[in-house]
Amino acid sequence: MKKKPWSGRFSQDTSGLVERFTESVSIDGRLFVQDIEGSIAHAEMLKAAGLLSEDEARAITQGLREIARDIESGALVFDPALEDVHMNIEVELTRRIGEPGKKLHTARSRNDQVATDLRLYIRGRLGEVCTLLRRFMTTLIEKASGHVDTIIPGMTHLQHAQPVSFAHHLLAYVEMFMRDFDRAKDAARRLNVSPLGSAALAGTPHPIDRFMTAAALQFDEPGRNSIDGVSDRDFAIEAVFCASVIMMHLSRLAEEIVIWNSQPFSWVVLPDAFCTGSSIMPQKKNPDVAELVRGKTGGVYGSLVALLTMMKALPLAYNRDMQEDKAPVMQSLDTVCACLEVMDGLVQGLEVNREALERSLKAGFITATDMADYLVEKGVPFREAHRITGEIVSYLASQGKAFEDLGAEDFKKFSQAFGPDIVTVIRPESSVDRRRSFGGTARANVKAMIEDARTRVESLEV
Amino acid sequence: MKKKPWSGRFSQDTSGLVERFTESVSIDGRLFVQDIEGSIAHAEMLKAAGLLSEDEARAITQGLREIARDIESGALVFDPALEDVHMNIEVELTRRIGEPGKKLHTARSRNDQVATDLRLYIRGRLGEVCTLLRRFMTTLIEKASGHVDTIIPGMTHLQHAQPVSFAHHLLAYVEMFMRDFDRAKDAARRLNVSPLGSAALAGTPHPIDRFMTAAALQFDEPGRNSIDGVSDRDFAIEAVFCASVIMMHLSRLAEEIVIWNSQPFSWVVLPDAFCTGSSIMPQKKNPDVAELVRGKTGGVYGSLVALLTMMKALPLAYNRDMQEDKAPVMQSLDTVCACLEVMDGLVQGLEVNREALERSLKAGFITATDMADYLVEKGVPFREAHRITGEIVSYLASQGKAFEDLGAEDFKKFSQAFGPDIVTVIRPESSVDRRRSFGGTARANVKAMIEDARTRVESLEV
Amino acid sequence: MKKKPWSGRFSQDTSGLVERFTESVSIDGRLFVQDIEGSIAHAEMLKAAGLLSEDEARAITQGLREIARDIESGALVFDPALEDVHMNIEVELTRRIGEPGKKLHTARSRNDQVATDLRLYIRGRLGEVCTLLRRFMTTLIEKASGHVDTIIPGMTHLQHAQPVSFAHHLLAYVEMFMRDFDRAKDAARRLNVSPLGSAALAGTPHPIDRFMTAAALQFDEPGRNSIDGVSDRDFAIEAVFCASVIMMHLSRLAEEIVIWNSQPFSWVVLPDAFCTGSSIMPQKKNPDVAELVRGKTGGVYGSLVALLTMMKALPLAYNRDMQEDKAPVMQSLDTVCACLEVMDGLVQGLEVNREALERSLKAGFITATDMADYLVEKGVPFREAHRITGEIVSYLASQGKAFEDLGAEDFKKFSQAFGPDIVTVIRPESSVDRRRSFGGTARANVKAMIEDARTRVESLEV
Amino acid sequence: MKKKPWSGRFSQDTSGLVERFTESVSIDGRLFVQDIEGSIAHAEMLKAAGLLSEDEARAITQGLREIARDIESGALVFDPALEDVHMNIEVELTRRIGEPGKKLHTARSRNDQVATDLRLYIRGRLGEVCTLLRRFMTTLIEKASGHVDTIIPGMTHLQHAQPVSFAHHLLAYVEMFMRDFDRAKDAARRLNVSPLGSAALAGTPHPIDRFMTAAALQFDEPGRNSIDGVSDRDFAIEAVFCASVIMMHLSRLAEEIVIWNSQPFSWVVLPDAFCTGSSIMPQKKNPDVAELVRGKTGGVYGSLVALLTMMKALPLAYNRDMQEDKAPVMQSLDTVCACLEVMDGLVQGLEVNREALERSLKAGFITATDMADYLVEKGVPFREAHRITGEIVSYLASQGKAFEDLGAEDFKKFSQAFGPDIVTVIRPESSVDRRRSFGGTARANVKAMIEDARTRVESLEV
Repeated sequence: MKKKPWSGRFSQDTSGLVERFTESVSIDGRLFVQDIEGSIAHAEMLKAAGLLSEDEARAITQGLREIARDIESGALVFDPALEDVHMNIEVELTRRIGEPGKKLHTARSRNDQVATDLRLYIRGRLGEVCTLLRRFMTTLIEKASGHVDTIIPGMTHLQHAQPVSFAHHLLAYVEMFMRDFDRAKDAARRLNVSPLGSAALAGTPHPIDRFMTAAALQFDEPGRNSIDGVSDRDFAIEAVFCASVIMMHLSRLAEEIVIWNSQPFSWVVLPDAFCTGSSIMPQKKNPDVAELVRGKTGGVYGSLVALLTMMKALPLAYNRDMQEDKAPVMQSLDTVCACLEVMDGLVQGLEVNREALERSLKAGFITATDMADYLVEKGVPFREAHRITGEIVSYLASQGKAFEDLGAEDFKKFSQAFGPDIVTVIRPESSVDRRRSFGGTARANVKAMIEDARTRVESLEV
Repeated sequence: MKKKPWSGRFSQDTSGLVERFTESVSIDGRLFVQDIEGSIAHAEMLKAAGLLSEDEARAITQGLREIARDIESGALVFDPALEDVHMNIEVELTRRIGEPGKKLHTARSRNDQVATDLRLYIRGRLGEVCTLLRRFMTTLIEKASGHVDTIIPGMTHLQHAQPVSFAHHLLAYVEMFMRDFDRAKDAARRLNVSPLGSAALAGTPHPIDRFMTAAALQFDEPGRNSIDGVSDRDFAIEAVFCASVIMMHLSRLAEEIVIWNSQPFSWVVLPDAFCTGSSIMPQKKNPDVAELVRGKTGGVYGSLVALLTMMKALPLAYNRDMQEDKAPVMQSLDTVCACLEVMDGLVQGLEVNREALERSLKAGFITATDMADYLVEKGVPFREAHRITGEIVSYLASQGKAFEDLGAEDFKKFSQAFGPDIVTVIRPESSVDRRRSFGGTARANVKAMIEDARTRVESLEV
Repeated sequence: MKKKPWSGRFSQDTSGLVERFTESVSIDGRLFVQDIEGSIAHAEMLKAAGLLSEDEARAITQGLREIARDIESGALVFDPALEDVHMNIEVELTRRIGEPGKKLHTARSRNDQVATDLRLYIRGRLGEVCTLLRRFMTTLIEKASGHVDTIIPGMTHLQHAQPVSFAHHLLAYVEMFMRDFDRAKDAARRLNVSPLGSAALAGTPHPIDRFMTAAALQFDEPGRNSIDGVSDRDFAIEAVFCASVIMMHLSRLAEEIVIWNSQPFSWVVLPDAFCTGSSIMPQKKNPDVAELVRGKTGGVYGSLVALLTMMKALPLAYNRDMQEDKAPVMQSLDTVCACLEVMDGLVQGLEVNREALERSLKAGFITATDMADYLVEKGVPFREAHRITGEIVSYLASQGKAFEDLGAEDFKKFSQAFGPDIVTVIRPESSVDRRRSFGGTARANVKAMIEDARTRVESLEV
Repeated sequence: MKKKPWSGRFSQDTSGLVERFTESVSIDGRLFVQDIEGSIAHAEMLKAAGLLSEDEARAITQGLREIARDIESGALVFDPALEDVHMNIEVELTRRIGEPGKKLHTARSRNDQVATDLRLYIRGRLGEVCTLLRRFMTTLIEKASGHVDTIIPGMTHLQHAQPVSFAHHLLAYVEMFMRDFDRAKDAARRLNVSPLGSAALAGTPHPIDRFMTAAALQFDEPGRNSIDGVSDRDFAIEAVFCASVIMMHLSRLAEEIVIWNSQPFSWVVLPDAFCTGSSIMPQKKNPDVAELVRGKTGGVYGSLVALLTMMKALPLAYNRDMQEDKAPVMQSLDTVCACLEVMDGLVQGLEVNREALERSLKAGFITATDMADYLVEKGVPFREAHRITGEIVSYLASQGKAFEDLGAEDFKKFSQAFGPDIVTVIRPESSVDRRRSFGGTARANVKAMIEDARTRVESLEV
């Protein structure tokens, strides 16, 4: 039963309990694609270095490709007793092609092998994240383009603050995801250094060509320090950090959708296909997708904490603790991809309820700032203008009235600076369109920004 | 295809994407035991309340028991399209027994149902944790009982500080796990309140008897507030907190084992069956189990963060975010149980290397405190005694010598207070045995404490 | 300049940079009360043990009391060059009373001293937390007692679900804080073990009486293991965990208040004294207090993570890392106390807006469950009742109508089971009062639960 | 007493309790430099836009500069009743220069003002971090250059694995800090977008020039979306993430130093000026600096969790929760800077203990891989070579012997492939020098890498 590759030094077999405890193939099995890709690059290089014959290399490459197919088809199932994906594949290879299979591990170690596999995996997933971010930004921009004229109460402190174009609001999310895209690209660039050939920790005496394997695997270069090559997990942590910030952004949008969808707001109507009902309350149409996205944020934050905790105070070089990197990485990348996908669908299907919005816009003295700004333009110092407006608000609130209920003359009672045009100034549309400062919500601005965003998104390379 | 229990209000079917995103049965499927247990208690109560006939109740109970058997045997497989474990079981029940199956959901909601299931599940797992803690404490105590006379360098700042009995060191862990046991029991007690009958959030008009279901499920009492009943997840967070502190304690022991097992220390010999080797370095015998335990600590901390984040700022009552509670709870409880189990085996098989310990005890002036204490007994003020000893240490260190290399006369050169007995005082055994203060490391103390610990552990009820 | 108590062994002075880096008195200075309390207990015991003369003990006790007064009055200011609060006080004591001051440190170490101080400090703060929790529960109960008849839309998924009494909603928070109280008491009990006399890590040869100091400091008993005594920080972590869960609960209430206070809801009116305005938007009356409470939740969670991370994988016994325990503990306890205090004031001053609530109750088909339950009572199986009601909701929603807009005859078109009493059944008050199950929202229940809660809160001992 | 700038709308003064709870100047007071810098840029722009006269702008600018001086000198002390640094400065300005002071707030809000201040602050601190990273890398490289020939046991699993040059080991940290530098620069670039002019959330009707203020404050450009401008805190989170990863790296080095400094290792001698002693154990020379760095890692991780939690699910745009961003940002940047500084000093003063290293190198069969590689070169398949070597190790370990104790003939008993040169192959120096693969530890490689690292560090622009 001594099938461990390292059993020479041992007088006792591994306990079954320990075998179950230490096995990782139930999780790292997903890396078989990258593992085989890395092994093929390694084998080709070994051949070029004269460490494998042409025949041996061919047997290995062909054997690995067949194994990949068999894993995909389900014909080959992993054996937990073989610990991890690497050993499962190598043992199977040797079973199939004999001696050459044993030579594949020349000049490498599981330490650099797993680091290579994980980098390849994360690089691929970051690409997927970028693709989904780009798609979601496009959805937000297209949704915005249909809502330049939809005016909503802009909020601070969840209080009506100033009216804004709904398109402007949606474009704020585009800015967030644009940064997320940029951040993910930076992470992918920083990750793109090959650890292959670092061997156990010190490099190898074999005349390997690390530039060749790096190039074959589309890494920018081989890493300069073999100890760092096997002990570094920055790339994993950084990827999960990127996922965490994306989830934070999604959770904000999710929260808004949940609030907008509440009966007192009723600002939006969600697509039936993206909601679920209640087993007991027949009237319910719950924003489950948004809630789940919001809830899943915790899990991704947790994965970040898991990785940072795991790496804290670990002496160099490789330690077995680092095996625990895979589950948090995979779970958080799975989550962020799924969330980007469903939020994309949710936003596509989201419609606004114009009546509810109009009702909302009448509440909360939402153009009070415009009134104060108006007074400033008439020469009143800002802080005084602010005070006068505050008093009008306070007076009307106590009467249960709105700005619209006052005529120009009424305003004059609070300040002589008011002219007849105040009545126009306090209309939401005029409030919005006056905010022409760069980045402001004036509809003309917003239209230009939609074009600008389209161009920027189109130019993004995944 | 409209098989959703709440489809009446909907004009569109759920999108496939959303179905995959919102399904939870792949995770909460593990709760089938608790779900069925809860449903049977509910059905019995409905019968007693006259809401189900005797026949209906019998059909339900029997149907559920058969379903439980079929799930266990693998004959019944969950369908993700039915969302969760609750719906899977209910639909299957109705398929098997017809109309009465539909009545089972009377006077309850998935909101109180899932809260009940999860409490039952966690209660069971906390019991398991307590059992494993008790077993591990017993192992530590038995190991300690064989090592009262094994003296190791006690460390602070990972520096040789004062010699201690290895048994005393092991008993420190018993104190930690004793607190963990106590904490888990507190958590289990606080958890043990039945939410069943809270219904969706407001209670129910049906004449149910919540005391009856609470008693049937061995809860201490039904919860007093239906809104709290469906919106509370304190019990889940507290369980994962308990797991986090246990992992923290285990990570400290794991770290010590890793360090003790390093070649420069070589204080311990680990059992082959609990170590693994290296695929490239034939001499390696790695303390993988200890490393993995240490690494898995991160994952459990992450689960705690996940749950706290998830619950932050959630308005009452139930929100779908809370579906994300199960994975962190299950993962962290699985982890802590597995880690307690393997650490138990590792400690059982651990042996000390007496030669290495003796070599270590000679280094680091480990009885310097005894020397200072000696001077204090001779009437030297403590701070001065400390200074004199420091100077002796400094002198010897610069000469590459140890205390043993000085005779009584040499000591006198540093202070007239030294007498000939100083030579005995600085021996590790005498240092240990002098520390007779309650809780101190004197071997007589330690023996008594082993008895005390045995008694305490035996009296623990799981 | 060699004023360090341990400089004997050193040939170089501490660098200024390191002095600044390692000093802790800027933070642990707050522990002077506990430090002096502990030192007095220690001195009294040393006297009883014959290690201090009556005169020495008196000089020490008196000197320490004067130092305490001088620190409080500001006459004595800490010197960071003396590292920590312990050394500052001891050096000052020796300056004032001479030789006896040097003897105070006999049979103890900074390791057990700081552990004692921190336990005393946390015990006191947990008491404060309990007092504030009790006060806040009283406030919630009294607020509830004025709102039994105030009916609000109970929500799940932030969707109108079923009408509930506002008192019932507030009482849900009482349940949460009741658990928090219980949890804090458990933490305080588990903490209440004296480490004093553990000395550096191994106990001491001096004939000390740890039971005497434990009793003097109102600990339940001295700790049984000296290594655990100086290396344990469970009590700090558990206190911060308690704070985290309280903050989580407060953040939920804060979130609700923010939402209820938004213009579209307008369910509540907050007291001016607990709100702030905007420097630019004159109409704003922001729920800043609630927002800050919600935001501060992050800081407390962060403190928990800080402590768990700090303790992860620390070998026994004391390590300097543990100096970093104080800031997170103090900050999180400061925060939780301040938040309980302001939320108490906010809830006291909070008023409901009945008109807005009535408007809200008309929306969202909030009594749909009652309609389904009604059908069940008329013999319709639950799942079918649910479906019929869902169809009515769907129909009315598409017409922009509410339940109130239908007559008994209209209902009959959807199901023959409807009778004329359906019109009464769907009124919010009748919905609330029908939920008479234990813990349900029926007003009679709620009144009883208010009494019950009052009794429970009154019986709580801090 | 109505000195609040927004008191117009309020009928009650803020409660004292609330004033203390909501004030932030005790923390954001540190931002006065950035606040004044931003205000001057804003005033200059207002002048250019014709919103301030030349005289007004001059009065403002001069007034602000004087205020900055007075704050620095301590002549001006903040008043918590004025809430925050912004209001303190503005009120003081108006007190000093009258009416023009009130006009400074035209076309801006505290929302964009604080976002601007915080970005400027973090940008500056990131620059400081980069400077310290560069300095520390230089220290590591110079230390490495003196230790190319110092051979240490390279470790995996804290087990002797393969001998490596100590310089190579130190250079691994250079790679980590190089990534940290790169990451901090990316963060600084992404941060460098001006929110000034976003106003409350919607932009402003005033004809401001945001490109002018952006340029004056050395931002790359003004932000494109005003809502994002006031609601984004990505830059703060990303800065704290950078700090977290740096701390993680430092904690690994700290851990190694602590372990290397333990008596059983004794690989290094730490500078007295960077260590402290024990108040009770006179012989102790504790690696406190390294321990504190390791411990402080928790605090920085905690800050990251604090910020992520705070921002989770916050609806747009500004919410008062975000006030809680400053403490975690400042604390974590303070910490990382202090830690980089002390670790720099610690590494500079660190010396290796060659005797101890030589002793260590003899233990643990550290050149076993070389033996296996040797066999592979002789044509033995890798897995078999591994097995043979494992058996030799196992045999010698059981005899308490080392490789050096065997002659060439002894080796032949295990495999005919061994030749007489095996005796040379297993010497540590030859093991190191054979690892010539790119990034490997051969001394020739390492020397080249030191040059390479010097060049790279010199080319870094802060």
